[in-house]
Amino acid sequence: MQFSSKLLEQAVDEFGRLPGVGKKTALRLVLHLLKQPDGEVSRFTGSINDLKEHIRYCRTCFNIADQDTCEICSASKRDHETICVVEDTRDVMAIENTNQYQGVYHVLGGLISPMDGVGPTDLKIDALLERLRTGEVKEVILALSATMEGDTTIFYLYRKLKDFNVQISTIARGIAFGGELEYVDELTLGRSIATRVPYERNN
Amino acid sequence: MQFSSKLLEQAVDEFGRLPGVGKKTALRLVLHLLKQPDGEVSRFTGSINDLKEHIRYCRTCFNIADQDTCEICSASKRDHETICVVEDTRDVMAIENTNQYQGVYHVLGGLISPMDGVGPTDLKIDALLERLRTGEVKEVILALSATMEGDTTIFYLYRKLKDFNVQISTIARGIAFGGELEYVDELTLGRSIATRVPYERNN
Repeated sequence: MQFSSKLLEQAVDEFGRLPGVGKKTALRLVLHLLKQPDGEVSRFTGSINDLKEHIRYCRTCFNIADQDTCEICSASKRDHETICVVEDTRDVMAIENTNQYQGVYHVLGGLISPMDGVGPTDLKIDALLERLRTGEVKEVILALSATMEGDTTIFYLYRKLKDFNVQISTIARGIAFGGELEYVDELTLGRSIATRVPYERNN
Repeated sequence: MQFSSKLLEQAVDEFGRLPGVGKKTALRLVLHLLKQPDGEVSRFTGSINDLKEHIRYCRTCFNIADQDTCEICSASKRDHETICVVEDTRDVMAIENTNQYQGVYHVLGGLISPMDGVGPTDLKIDALLERLRTGEVKEVILALSATMEGDTTIFYLYRKLKDFNVQISTIARGIAFGGELEYVDELTLGRSIATRVPYERNN
């Protein structure tokens, strides 16, 4: 791309660094911002700078928070005996949206991935073990993605957790509700037959 | 979406205002920025603020530029007797990329679109007529999109331009090079037959 302005090129370069944003999209976004009133643009950049500067992570569960302790960890009506271990804050939001979970969380901040140079020490695993040492926790639910990284992390966590007196569980895998059998991938379908459950439990 | 942090929510809201960026994508982009070092993030927001603050538009053609006159308008080797009228800076970039055009440009800054509240006075049309009054210009090429807005703008411009002693042309329409006939839309195919040209001219 031949830019008519260095400033334009720099802004497009910066936008193009974002994941999933190509050069053409970056240019479209930058030109959109250029058309907005000054106030809108400074509000845009200001919100990012504010977030970066003032963001905190809950001291207990490491979820993104505005205070030292997040709302979930400080809520007395939540079940503090059950910890759901997730990769990042998006998973917390997804699970909260289901309204099916009353326990608390532990946000690892990633998954073990040797390919990306992420090892166990890069994740909040020691802090999780620390939480278990209080003896208050009865169950740890490993709610991680069904990917190689997720499985590797579950395996690592399982070995660390099994010495504690806690129930360790993983979220159920199988065909999705509303999923049509013919469109389910072979692995999921095969496993869901192998791990079939009595009719009474599923209904 | 239930956010665990107001700051996070604000940043996601701002990103979500960008065209084509939904809430989920916005969250992904914001979390990506959160993981970057402080310097990267301030470079990102700084480049946008810089652009917004210091951007100029060429006094002659209104293309985005770093100086008062853009590089194309100030280049003596360009043909200043031919003006190519385009919607925005992306079109200038696209045409420059072809290496087929040696003239200069005029950037309207949009197309006439009553639906979006864009009328002729919102575009740099008076400035174009001003350029023609010098008598230097011999040809005006209307290189606008083949959409309703583009056609409306071409029609309006044609009526304004026809009193000047200049050749008015529009870019050729027809099937794309490499395009297979069976995949060409009916309108384009029909028109390309109606506006067929002698073999010698096309080859």
